[in-house]
Amino acid sequence: MKAARYYGRGQIQIDNIPEPTLTPGSVGIEVAWCGICGTDLHEYLEGPIFCPQPGQRHAASGESLPVTLGHEFSGTVYAVGPGVEDIAPGQRVVVEPYIVRDDVDTGPTSKDYHLSKDLGVIGLSGRGGGLGERIVVEQRWVHPIPDSLPLDQAALVEPLSVAYHAVERSEVSKGAVAVVGGAGPIGLLTSAVLKALGATVIVSELSSLRRQKALDTGVADYVLDPREIDVTQEVFRLTEGRGADVAFECSSAQPVLDTLVDALKPAGILVVIGIWGDRAGIDMFKIVVKEIDLRGAFAYVNSYPAVIKLLGSGAIDLQPFVTHRIGLDGLISEGFDTLLHHSESAVKIIVSPSGKGL
Amino acid sequence: MKAARYYGRGQIQIDNIPEPTLTPGSVGIEVAWCGICGTDLHEYLEGPIFCPQPGQRHAASGESLPVTLGHEFSGTVYAVGPGVEDIAPGQRVVVEPYIVRDDVDTGPTSKDYHLSKDLGVIGLSGRGGGLGERIVVEQRWVHPIPDSLPLDQAALVEPLSVAYHAVERSEVSKGAVAVVGGAGPIGLLTSAVLKALGATVIVSELSSLRRQKALDTGVADYVLDPREIDVTQEVFRLTEGRGADVAFECSSAQPVLDTLVDALKPAGILVVIGIWGDRAGIDMFKIVVKEIDLRGAFAYVNSYPAVIKLLGSGAIDLQPFVTHRIGLDGLISEGFDTLLHHSESAVKIIVSPSGKGL
Repeated sequence: MKAARYYGRGQIQIDNIPEPTLTPGSVGIEVAWCGICGTDLHEYLEGPIFCPQPGQRHAASGESLPVTLGHEFSGTVYAVGPGVEDIAPGQRVVVEPYIVRDDVDTGPTSKDYHLSKDLGVIGLSGRGGGLGERIVVEQRWVHPIPDSLPLDQAALVEPLSVAYHAVERSEVSKGAVAVVGGAGPIGLLTSAVLKALGATVIVSELSSLRRQKALDTGVADYVLDPREIDVTQEVFRLTEGRGADVAFECSSAQPVLDTLVDALKPAGILVVIGIWGDRAGIDMFKIVVKEIDLRGAFAYVNSYPAVIKLLGSGAIDLQPFVTHRIGLDGLISEGFDTLLHHSESAVKIIVSPSGKGL
Repeated sequence: MKAARYYGRGQIQIDNIPEPTLTPGSVGIEVAWCGICGTDLHEYLEGPIFCPQPGQRHAASGESLPVTLGHEFSGTVYAVGPGVEDIAPGQRVVVEPYIVRDDVDTGPTSKDYHLSKDLGVIGLSGRGGGLGERIVVEQRWVHPIPDSLPLDQAALVEPLSVAYHAVERSEVSKGAVAVVGGAGPIGLLTSAVLKALGATVIVSELSSLRRQKALDTGVADYVLDPREIDVTQEVFRLTEGRGADVAFECSSAQPVLDTLVDALKPAGILVVIGIWGDRAGIDMFKIVVKEIDLRGAFAYVNSYPAVIKLLGSGAIDLQPFVTHRIGLDGLISEGFDTLLHHSESAVKIIVSPSGKGL
């Protein structure tokens, strides 16, 4: 079968590899669609990060390079291994792509398996990936989806779970005012979750294409261009002097972080989702005298069921966020290149590894 | 009566001023002891900060310079104004030194009057101060203390409330492991609260005198010299590889902040109490992938009753933290100078404005 494999920085090939083998407790999935993530780009340009280091086995998976890429995927079950119940061939599913140590509690009440030691990611650290035609995954990480959710949108359950978990971290409630700094894919999806939960959403974004997307998709109530308007002043005006209840840093940019600290009300909550390459500067005096909570949010933990339920209810329509559909052979030339050079017009590029979806 | 008054940067005088006037709903207090706070030093050296600006009235108090200093004080009621019930002459009390706008909810369930607009502080912004012989305070801010609590220790209820509120912000629970960065007065009092609530306390501090104080007072289980030992490694060793549950930044120093981020477990809580003059640098990548909560903690809000109860129960003995007792005439020569030039040996210097306590 065909799969996109990562051999090291700047080296990705479309290979013909053997079919994965079903094992007890695992589920065989024919991949329908797999999204390209910013993390995939980082591995390509600056990695290995989550992928195994050259010549070494990954602590989580025990695998070494090359590894199949792709961790944002949907598909249909084609077979199940011995001992698998409650799931059968034909079931449409998504995968929560974790590889965790055996001694970690991954039960439905666990709140921290995503922070566990030696955490790995399917599609980065080993165990196959969504950029291959088929994959075998432990049943624990396989989540059925309702008939109402198309497989192309379902490929966005993974990034939507990142957004959902970040919103959970903010403890936002209905009627709250949220400021989202940056309207890339995660900023847009975070806005979508906030809107679905009944918040008023103010988006600050430099790119006019992205601002327009935030308006067209209906996820933002207000979009602000920080070059044209003082975002803090405008947030205070819109909230009648109160300030925002919650804010989300989705840009890894210093001016955005500073603006969000200023735009928050006293005791406001600032969730940082952006992955920062450099150290950030922070006005700690303001953090203290305003009693800001600055909270990191990483990936998701037991978030998939709630996200799938939210999508099944129709509260979020992901269709407008799927901007490009490509085949595996176009992964670099159409996929990565678009994200690198025309990122403002792309939200999610999804790949059909078999080409059947095209 | 005698009072220490602030006229502007570098200008404090011991003046003879008129007695304060009792008004409806207010309580007249003869001050027993008043602590000198780091904030008083800041006003002296770099102010006005919380004090009124030259030629201007303070937004909270409506008063202009000079103002009487002192906001950490205890005393005995000598008279009450019309309409005051439940409190009578002879009652020993402490004062929660806030000046808030009339439209702010200061009820017993309010969690944010300390963050309200135009907040002022008695003893800085106006309304007299604890560095005068007598003061008149609205009953709302007057808290009776039990007979078991001596008036000298009671002068430390204010800074202990700062520590208590910071510990509240950490949501620490019994058996948790806490790292306290910096063992100045607030670091020591924070350690004392943590210890009283059943936490294991690890203090990191450069000064050997302060480390010794943390051990002698029994508030620290471990004291570490960050020049001699890798604090992060040692915290992980002491917690069997788990990391600290909570951490408290009480130094306003960059290396301390970085160490605390490293020493925390995933999902750990870092409370910043220190007042930073400069911007801080922060490793935001770690904040995100460890899902650290970084929380500012400022002053206190409805914390006095719990603090007074804790002291009344004997869970904290403040006696070792009172290191110097002086009269009003020695405020600068003995008090400020000791804190500026011999701060390692001093924890709390308390002043008897009338001289009767000496």
